[in-house]
Amino acid sequence: MKILLIGAHGTIGSTIDRELSPRHEIVRIGRKSGDFQVDISDSASIRKLFQQTGQFDALICAAGSVTFAPLGQMSEKDFVLGLQNKLMGQVNLLLIGREFANDGASFTFTSGVINREPIRTGSSAALVNAALDGFVKAAAIELPRGLRVNSVSPTVLEEAMDHYAPFFRGFKPVPAAEVALAYAKSVEGLHTGQTYQVG
Amino acid sequence: MKILLIGAHGTIGSTIDRELSPRHEIVRIGRKSGDFQVDISDSASIRKLFQQTGQFDALICAAGSVTFAPLGQMSEKDFVLGLQNKLMGQVNLLLIGREFANDGASFTFTSGVINREPIRTGSSAALVNAALDGFVKAAAIELPRGLRVNSVSPTVLEEAMDHYAPFFRGFKPVPAAEVALAYAKSVEGLHTGQTYQVG
Ligand SMILES: NC(=O)c1ccc[n+]([C@@H]2O[C@H](COP(=O)([O-])OP(=O)(O)OC[C@H]3O[C@@H](n4cnc5c(N)ncnc54)[C@H](OP(=O)(O)O)[C@@H]3O)[C@@H](O)[C@H]2O)c1
Ligand SMILES: NC(=O)c1ccc[n+]([C@@H]2O[C@H](COP(=O)([O-])OP(=O)(O)OC[C@H]3O[C@@H](n4cnc5c(N)ncnc54)[C@H](OP(=O)(O)O)[C@@H]3O)[C@@H](O)[C@H]2O)c1
Repeated sequence: MKILLIGAHGTIGSTIDRELSPRHEIVRIGRKSGDFQVDISDSASIRKLFQQTGQFDALICAAGSVTFAPLGQMSEKDFVLGLQNKLMGQVNLLLIGREFANDGASFTFTSGVINREPIRTGSSAALVNAALDGFVKAAAIELPRGLRVNSVSPTVLEEAMDHYAPFFRGFKPVPAAEVALAYAKSVEGLHTGQTYQVG
Repeated sequence: MKILLIGAHGTIGSTIDRELSPRHEIVRIGRKSGDFQVDISDSASIRKLFQQTGQFDALICAAGSVTFAPLGQMSEKDFVLGLQNKLMGQVNLLLIGREFANDGASFTFTSGVINREPIRTGSSAALVNAALDGFVKAAAIELPRGLRVNSVSPTVLEEAMDHYAPFFRGFKPVPAAEVALAYAKSVEGLHTGQTYQVG
């Protein structure tokens, strides 16, 4: 399969790369790094990406930013990044990418644990993660041509604990390699409309 | 209690009014109808509303619009209404309203069944409903002063089947009066961070 991997050099993306590259052609995409560049928060940039990559069999997005801040200090504008980047960025990868997707192609997005087990400063992340999982479930039943869409909702990664440990006290971190399996299940299996909770 | 009821003349809102008005002071709010008017998609309008109503003990929102359209015909712009109106409208009612909320006051928002059981044309609704339920769960743990927040996620209402039946074939509709009980449980109980699924 020809797999577009957005966020290929990130903590999660690089492990997905290791899991899938022995069996598939990986097109590595980042904001600055990779074979191609995209800013997922910009739909024109997304369209330009697909014009460069051409048709594909699977798209994985392991990228997406949200604002982490104490709710008491947040106003409307602090929700914009999450809505435009992690949420609508991934929604737009499907809305635009389907034009370039081969029959039976899959989309696999990344949400996260914070809507299942909220943390301090996580209200925008919880909103966005839940929205993604909800979108995936609904979009799946309307996709034509055997197109599929799933999301992976990992808990905090072992490899990210250097930075994130203070926000995730008491959480059992999961190795990135185990998270990568969920992307393989989505891409190489036949599920659709699923959210894979890892950890 | 002094309860601000947004969408007081709607299908759900009018039933909440009947359930709660025997025991509480209801301030009825609509886009055009009611004691006060607000457009929840406009944060300036929300702030003006609270300046008019003053302090309150509970806020209920039984309003919120999203675009219903076949996924195959949707682009980014078809998600804007749901994000600005039903989603960020309700989020902003909390972000702004907390300044006017008495200690221990509650916020009760309305999501809906479509992220739990998706329907044709429901991808924006599913995204928005899930986002609301995720936000409520996370925001609850960060609210100060005993402030609370819950959401009510009703299935389709008996009273709405005239218009909605074709989209909800096979769904067992629920009477509005039963949905209204969930708002009473949120307002008059002590729960927070909950989503009440009705039907
Ligand atoms: N790390 C965790 O513990 C964890 C747990 C649960 C969920 N998640 C979620 O998983 C996703 C990836 O997390 P991560 O920790 O692997 O991130 P990361 O290590 O910071 O890597 C992010 C990757 O995404 C790319 N990227 C950043 N902004 C982009 C944009 N606007 N458009 C396109 N690509 C962009 C980066 O490109 P460059 O290489 O060019 O910089 C990089 O390759 C995030 O949504 C995060 O919320 C992470
Ligand atoms: N009906 C159902 O079966 C059902 C099931 C599940 C969830 N829901 C959700 O419940 C909510 C209410 O549904 P409903 O059927 O009761 O609606 P409805 O009968 O159409 O009533 C809507 C109410 O909201 C007010 N409103 C509309 N737009 C507004 C805005 N921008 N700002 C402030 N107020 C506004 C209206 O004011 P005016 O009186 O001035 O017009 C009206 O009072 C919606 O979010 C809907 O998705 C409905």
